[in-house]
Formats: sequence, structure tokens, C-alpha cells
Amino acid sequence: MNKIYNPTPDTWVSILERPTKTVNDIEATVKEIFAAVQKDGDVAVAKYTTQFDGVYFENSEVTAAEIEVAINTISDELKAAISLAKANVETFHQVQKTSRVSVETAEGVQCWQEKRPIQKVGLYIPGGTAPLFSTVLMLAVPAKIAGCNEIVLCSPPDKNGNINPAILYAANLCGVTKIIKVGGIQAIAGMTFGTKAIPKVYKIFGPGNQYVTVAKQLATQFGVAIDMPAGPSELLVVADDTAVPAFVASDLLSQAEHGTDSQVILVSTSKAMIDAVESEIQSQLEVLPRKAIAEKAIANSKLIYVENDEIALELIDEYGPEHFIICVQDEDFYVNNIGNAGSVFIGNYTPESAGDYASGTNHTLPTNGYAKNYSGVNLDSFMKSMTFQKISEKGIQNIGKAIEIMAEAEGLQAHKNAVTLRLKSLE
Amino acid sequence: MNKIYNPTPDTWVSILERPTKTVNDIEATVKEIFAAVQKDGDVAVAKYTTQFDGVYFENSEVTAAEIEVAINTISDELKAAISLAKANVETFHQVQKTSRVSVETAEGVQCWQEKRPIQKVGLYIPGGTAPLFSTVLMLAVPAKIAGCNEIVLCSPPDKNGNINPAILYAANLCGVTKIIKVGGIQAIAGMTFGTKAIPKVYKIFGPGNQYVTVAKQLATQFGVAIDMPAGPSELLVVADDTAVPAFVASDLLSQAEHGTDSQVILVSTSKAMIDAVESEIQSQLEVLPRKAIAEKAIANSKLIYVENDEIALELIDEYGPEHFIICVQDEDFYVNNIGNAGSVFIGNYTPESAGDYASGTNHTLPTNGYAKNYSGVNLDSFMKSMTFQKISEKGIQNIGKAIEIMAEAEGLQAHKNAVTLRLKSLE
Repeated sequence: MNKIYNPTPDTWVSILERPTKTVNDIEATVKEIFAAVQKDGDVAVAKYTTQFDGVYFENSEVTAAEIEVAINTISDELKAAISLAKANVETFHQVQKTSRVSVETAEGVQCWQEKRPIQKVGLYIPGGTAPLFSTVLMLAVPAKIAGCNEIVLCSPPDKNGNINPAILYAANLCGVTKIIKVGGIQAIAGMTFGTKAIPKVYKIFGPGNQYVTVAKQLATQFGVAIDMPAGPSELLVVADDTAVPAFVASDLLSQAEHGTDSQVILVSTSKAMIDAVESEIQSQLEVLPRKAIAEKAIANSKLIYVENDEIALELIDEYGPEHFIICVQDEDFYVNNIGNAGSVFIGNYTPESAGDYASGTNHTLPTNGYAKNYSGVNLDSFMKSMTFQKISEKGIQNIGKAIEIMAEAEGLQAHKNAVTLRLKSLE
Repeated sequence: MNKIYNPTPDTWVSILERPTKTVNDIEATVKEIFAAVQKDGDVAVAKYTTQFDGVYFENSEVTAAEIEVAINTISDELKAAISLAKANVETFHQVQKTSRVSVETAEGVQCWQEKRPIQKVGLYIPGGTAPLFSTVLMLAVPAKIAGCNEIVLCSPPDKNGNINPAILYAANLCGVTKIIKVGGIQAIAGMTFGTKAIPKVYKIFGPGNQYVTVAKQLATQFGVAIDMPAGPSELLVVADDTAVPAFVASDLLSQAEHGTDSQVILVSTSKAMIDAVESEIQSQLEVLPRKAIAEKAIANSKLIYVENDEIALELIDEYGPEHFIICVQDEDFYVNNIGNAGSVFIGNYTPESAGDYASGTNHTLPTNGYAKNYSGVNLDSFMKSMTFQKISEKGIQNIGKAIEIMAEAEGLQAHKNAVTLRLKSLE
């Protein structure tokens, strides 16, 4: 672990630097697969599924029978846990509903804003060792609340041609309309162009490896929106002597086990706390099943000592952490003033894993500094805002002259004329 | 004009097709300029400004003296018009403010969502024949209401090294913090990487030609967010016999004068209305100063007759127009059911130009079908949503078990451990 004491502000950017990604190497592969899927549809998708996942499908859509098997496979204990998490995620996203915002800006000029669902959305759920059924909840629950009428889920099959039963169980529970056994670049390409088996969607959500990330970025060039650019997961904890070193260490390690490129940072105004957390990390690390991964991430982690809360806040705001845990005496100072963070966890009994699974907040969050300019996934991510205006005869008489003058000044005579004709008809 | 009667749904996609863009040709130029600005900063920017705009600056920032001159140049009449428009835009965006959304998802588990400003934003305002000072209002007013603390505006200089005074006047009025005389790709690159003269920003807004559009798309690969992908402006009017043909024609022409690639569509359940609008267009077109442009756009326009409102709605929803004017008897049918549109104008006295300038709604809207998945610019475009959670001892006892079970099922032991340690401490 790197311990850094009182770094000067001019060194912050380099201290807080994230690992660079090598997007260029991947781009050619992604473009090739996109072109193939655009041209050959399901034939190309099947080819890449065989190539990358080692299975061939006549029909890649998950059947009702497969879902039935999944439902019977999941333990009652896990079902109850998923049910509790789902209820909390529902509660938190339900309250995010906004009603129509309406105002008469001038007499006779009524303007309003309404949010309407994005009609077709695609959810990508990675395969691999950790079956992210929790992400299914985080994406499908708000999609359903938003009122999206087509919710497509793509996830790669394992070598036997199956998707993890917990993913199927969660998808079915949350009202996903179609589940397709396809992963990687070919899944993103399929949802971008549409094939016979894979519906074309308007927006794609969900995490993935570097290939999926680049594929999502390329999808935006074909008219599809995405939730946000992705990057390795990250956690920053600010702690003073009121924190519990064992808890802080466990949070840092829970982040570190995600991947070797995970970012783990502790900022503290207490040198004693830094030392205590460091030694806790060492002992907790020993017994972790994913020790090999966590160890590498921890080796790159940073324990940063600063003089006071003001400096700490400024440094944290410069970083813009995806997950931000606050374990300090004066937590309100950080809560009220943090400008850039994805999700914030407050106090000694609020581990990051609570937000990952069951507190109700969304765990699809901006990493890689994107907390400066992107929202985490929320109800609005599945909707778009539309505006409406209705102007009465009186209304156009009130604002018509201003429109004519401005249109004229911009050299747009036909814009002016549309108003002039109406004003004249009212003379 | 192309008149199309009762097109079958399978032909809609081709009938409603937008002009294809040739992004690939432009990409190489954009990448080259980005690389140069990233490497050489202001030196590269100055080089391209000389090359494309024909002027050289030692200092490209607009001075207080230049703003003073602009203020004195603008007529009182135009100032009053801008002032009225600004007030309406302010009113409409002010009411879009949302307060903290907070809920206790389970006993002891408090979750809330808050929106905080994107700290640094960049506004791009094109130069050229039509000085879009109205766009300055549409971007700077909500940026200011959102609380963005750095609002940078870039706009290309004319041959004499000046920005149109109306743009300067509006920018100064709306509280833009820095105005820089730089345009095109080099402006977007400058705001992406930051130079000595041009601040690096977190999100870039505003219209532009194809070069600017591709540059904004490239900017997203360097961590910068953008308002939305752009495309040629478009208008769709639905009209029945209650519409006024002269008004409808004037609206279609106001769209057509934007550019030769503008999209203009009339959908009607009345053949008589289609013929009446067609003949009105011909006569109004004759006297327009931008006749040459409007004529070309009109030549590509489509007048589509359909049997009834249900078919019309379905067709319009498939198109997803940027601007959508409703001039029919049963306007509520369209207002309540339209799923995809940027901004909607209702009734005979609500021309599109009202929304372009002064009704209060934003005129930066999704074109090119993006109304299906993107919001128009609104107050939230200048903010990001952050979530917070605070869990009490009681709270973690309520949801801790579920987290442990889910983390275990996903194979993430350290995530589980962060909860287990806390639960144990409470035993």
C-alpha cells in the first residue's frame, strides 16, 4: 500500500490517476463484429457465440421451461434475500417519479415538462465467475417503474448453454420481457441493429468487460443511447479517529476483490487511523477466497493523510469517487459539500455492500471520474423529458413581437413570418 | 413536395428516413486536430483559428471592453426582446428544480437522491450567417440556475476577429464566466483537454456543423460528456381541417429555412388540407430571403395522408420528431399519447418559432430520431443526480442478512465480510 502524507495540490492529479485503458487495440475487433452482425444478423451472432462461448444455438431465447427450472433451483433463503432487496430498490426508485412541471411563463403561454418512458431498453448482464443477479434488480426494477414496454436482457451462456439460474430468476421476477443467451460484443451489436432473435433497443444499460464497454460506446454512433461510459470500480473512504479500522478495512477489501484494476483509496486526517487500517487490511486479506485479486488491487491502493477536512474534501472532489464512504465526526461537512460522487455511504454501519445489494440505491454508478458529469442510473435514466407548449391568441400577442425581433436579428425571416401571419390574423 | 397517400406500415421506415451522414470522412480531420490541441495547446488552437477563420490572436478571450462595445451596439428593441425571452426561459427552467427525494426503505435505512451542479460546463455557439444568440439564452440560463460555477462559451470569430455583438450581449447578460473567440473542432478540443486560454470542462453543450458534431462525439472518448448527438433540424406537423393552411405552411417553411437538409413533414387526415398547405407553401416561399435554402428542403419534404388519428400517431411515434406541432380537433389524443418527440406545440397559435425564442421551453432538442432515447436540454442536463444512504445499527440488522446471502451467491466474500463484521460487533 502506498502511504502518502500531505500531498501538495499540484500532485493530486497524478496521485489520483486511474489506470489507463487501451481502447484502440479493442476497437478493431468491436467494429468487425458490429459490421458482421449488421450484415448477417443472427447468423453472425451465432458464429461469435460459438467462437467466444463455445456453444451453438438454434434458438437463443430463454424459454419458459428454462425459467421454471431456475425458479426451482434457487434456495428459499436466496429468494427471500432477493425479495427484500427488490422491495427496497422499488421503494427508492418509485419515489423518484416526478409529476408534470407546468407554468404559465407569460399570460396565455402555458409550458410544461413531462417524462415519458424510453419504449425499448436493453440490459446487459455479464457472465463469468460472479453472476451479477443484483444488477438485474438495479436495471430491470427502474425500467419497469418507468414504464418501458420492451425490456430485453442479454447475458452470455456458460459452456453448457445456460445462464446462471439466479440471473434468470431475478429477470423473470422483475418483469424482463425477453431474455437472450448472448454475450459480449455480439450482444451489444444485436441490440443496436436488431436481428430476428434480438430486438433493436433505444438504450443499452449495464456493466461489462472492456470489449462490452467499447461496444457500448460504438453503439452510440448508430443512434443507440447508453447508460454511461464504464471503467473499473472504485471506492474512496474518508475516515478520522471516530471510524472503526476493521470496518474501513473490510470496505476497502470488498472493493478490491472486484478486480485487479479496482481503485481503493483511504483519505484520513489521522495518521493512527491510516496505520490501523493498513494492519487490518493485511490480516483480513489472508482469509479471502479472492485474495489473489484483492491483493493486487490493494498493492495499488493509496492511503492519504491530509491536515484537515477542508483539504480532504477538495482532494475527494477532484477525484470524484464512484463510491464514497464517510466515517468521520463531522459527517455533515462532507455530505453537504461533496460535489462529485456517485453514491455516498454515511457512518460506521453503512458499508458499500449495502448499496451494492439491498439499501435501495442503485449500484450502477459513474466510475473513472465520471461522477463529475454523469448521474448514476436512476428512474430518469429510463425516461426522457419532453416539453409542451400551448399558446392562446392572447399569448401570441404577448410574446409575438419579441419573437419577430429576435428572428429578424438572427436572419431567419420565415421564423418571423410564422408569427407575423398569426398576429395579423388577430388584428 | 412528395405527397404520399395511405402508406403501409412496412414502408414507414423508408419514407421517414433521415439523410445519411458521412461521419467517416470527417473523423480523420477531427482526430488530427484533437491530437494537435492535446499536444500543443493554445499554439495549435491559434494555428487552426488562423487556418479556418482567417484571424490570429495573441489573446482569444473576449475582454470587458469588447463586451461594453457589444452592449452599446444592440438596439433597445432587441434588448427588450432578449429580456422577455430570458425571463420566460428562466421561469420555465426554474420550476424544473427538484428537491431532495428521501425515503426510509427499511427501518433504519435512509436513502436519498440529490442533484448537484456539474461544476464546469462549456457552451458552443456557432458563427456564420445566423448569429444564434437565442441559443446562448437556452444554454446559459439553465446552467446558471443549476449552479454551475464555471460557464465557458466558445464561438468562432469573424474575419475581423469579432464575435457577433448579440452573442456577446446575451452571454454577458446570462452570467457566462468566460467567452473565448474560438470555433469549430479546435474549440471542442480545447474544452476537452484544457489549454492555458480555454478551461477544461466536464460537459459540452450546443449546436454546430458536422465537424463540431463529430468533435463532440470524439470528446466523449476523453471523459467529457455532451448534451446529445446532433443532426439536421426537423419539424412534423399533424393537421386536420381545423388547422389554418397558411399557418401550417409558415411553420413548415420556418423549419425549411434552417438548411437544405432540414426535415419537413406534414401528416394529415385531410386531403384538402394537404393540398391547401402545398399551395400556401408555394406562395409564401416566393418572398423568403432564404428562399434558395428553403426551396431545397421543401423539395424533400413529405406530405402524408393517413386515414385516421390512430395511424397518424403510430407513424409519428415511429418518426420521433424533434419539433411536433399539433393542429387538430382532438389535440388531447396526440398530447396524451405521443411517446417520442422533443418539444410539442399545440394549437393554431403556437408556432415552432415561439419555442425557438421566447415561450420559455428549451430549443436544444433531440433530432434524427433521438427523441426516442434522449431528453432535450433541461435543467437536469446541467446537474447530476447523486445518491446517499445512512444506515443505523438497527438498519444493518434489518438488511444485513440479505446482503450476506446475495454477496455469497455472487461469490463476493469480502462484500459479505463487510456486513458480517458489523453485525458481529452488534451481537
